[in-house]
Amino acid sequence: MNDQNTNLENLKNIATELVQQRDWNQFHTPKDLSMNLSVEANELLEKFLWITSKASFEEIDKNRQEIEDEVGDVLFSILRFCSVSNIDTTAAFLQKIEKIKLKYPIEKAKGRHDKYTKL
Amino acid sequence: MNDQNTNLENLKNIATELVQQRDWNQFHTPKDLSMNLSVEANELLEKFLWITSKASFEEIDKNRQEIEDEVGDVLFSILRFCSVSNIDTTAAFLQKIEKIKLKYPIEKAKGRHDKYTKL
Amino acid sequence: MNDQNTNLENLKNIATELVQQRDWNQFHTPKDLSMNLSVEANELLEKFLWITSKASFEEIDKNRQEIEDEVGDVLFSILRFCSVSNIDTTAAFLQKIEKIKLKYPIEKAKGRHDKYTKL
Amino acid sequence: MNDQNTNLENLKNIATELVQQRDWNQFHTPKDLSMNLSVEANELLEKFLWITSKASFEEIDKNRQEIEDEVGDVLFSILRFCSVSNIDTTAAFLQKIEKIKLKYPIEKAKGRHDKYTKL
Repeated sequence: MNDQNTNLENLKNIATELVQQRDWNQFHTPKDLSMNLSVEANELLEKFLWITSKASFEEIDKNRQEIEDEVGDVLFSILRFCSVSNIDTTAAFLQKIEKIKLKYPIEKAKGRHDKYTKL
Repeated sequence: MNDQNTNLENLKNIATELVQQRDWNQFHTPKDLSMNLSVEANELLEKFLWITSKASFEEIDKNRQEIEDEVGDVLFSILRFCSVSNIDTTAAFLQKIEKIKLKYPIEKAKGRHDKYTKL
Repeated sequence: MNDQNTNLENLKNIATELVQQRDWNQFHTPKDLSMNLSVEANELLEKFLWITSKASFEEIDKNRQEIEDEVGDVLFSILRFCSVSNIDTTAAFLQKIEKIKLKYPIEKAKGRHDKYTKL
Repeated sequence: MNDQNTNLENLKNIATELVQQRDWNQFHTPKDLSMNLSVEANELLEKFLWITSKASFEEIDKNRQEIEDEVGDVLFSILRFCSVSNIDTTAAFLQKIEKIKLKYPIEKAKGRHDKYTKL
């Protein structure tokens, strides 16, 4: 299974089954899953500490397995969050894409990294 | 499009197109995208600050639109991270699921929230 | 040395000496130190994952040494950030206290956990 | 008051008074204060998003007031965390400094940014 032949519903079901088998539903509240997401995101962030942004591309190849593990944890956290919160992850993503397009119109945002409040 | 009829490759392509149109590739390094992920994860986390884990379920319904917006930002960040790092998000997730199963065997982990190092 | 007989200037000097002896100044940019702070804050956060807010008081006593270690790392990160950025930590804190008082006047904020934008 | 003439006990007392006047003790659990710390650390982190580590020094001067505000929030969160957890912040810091010195002996760590597990 890969990004081209699998949908998010399948991935959510795989995560939910793992959780149910371990009786972890009792711990999986939106609050705790959002904490878990932040913790996992920071384990990923740590991989790029003290190196330049440019060097972070090379870090991927030097350290691919550990980095992919952290990506897996991040995805697990956000999909579990969406499952317990009845959020369609794809729909939430697409809604947000439309909002980004409105906040950052091409002619204003092109080549700039400023936040929309400072454009 | 929703979680049942879309794959992650489609979502990645939508994000990449938005970025290319705005000439943002120059900013999208693994390091900065992992920072962005942490920032967005914490905007989600903030929604559940000062309330109990139990009350966080109700918070979803009171504040669904804002929460879905943060979920969209989180997904955007992690998918962009994977795109620039040549990571198949689905494969990274499934690899990690297998590792979680090994670290947390059902008979040991059932009903317990301890980290595997303390099981 | 403790909170009653030491000032932050002393603590900053101790951190700076440790860094200089190891020739780590080259890595200590504001960007990387703010990343480090987020990473360390999340190692602290992880200690309270999956337990209720109420139970987090007991967690302190069960796990005091590990938690104090994370507090030490957080303080190191923020003091190093202030040192390289020429920020008087005490003055920044006191300025912010005055702003909190204005944003959250007692009569409006008493007993409420809402963000000032929603008071 | 500044870093040279104030101790952390004074700053903790100022924070505690502000909290008591607003009846916020009920929300200030270790778990929620560690969440708050992560949220505030990420508001600081966001200031350095999409720019190089080197450029982050200039960012301090362009944006000093906003950055000092975030520093103030970070300090408020960690001091409140220590107050409710009966942690002497200075002692926790000094303990950790000794541990860093042992984990990163000068001759091994000099000029290197690797984690101690990889030295």
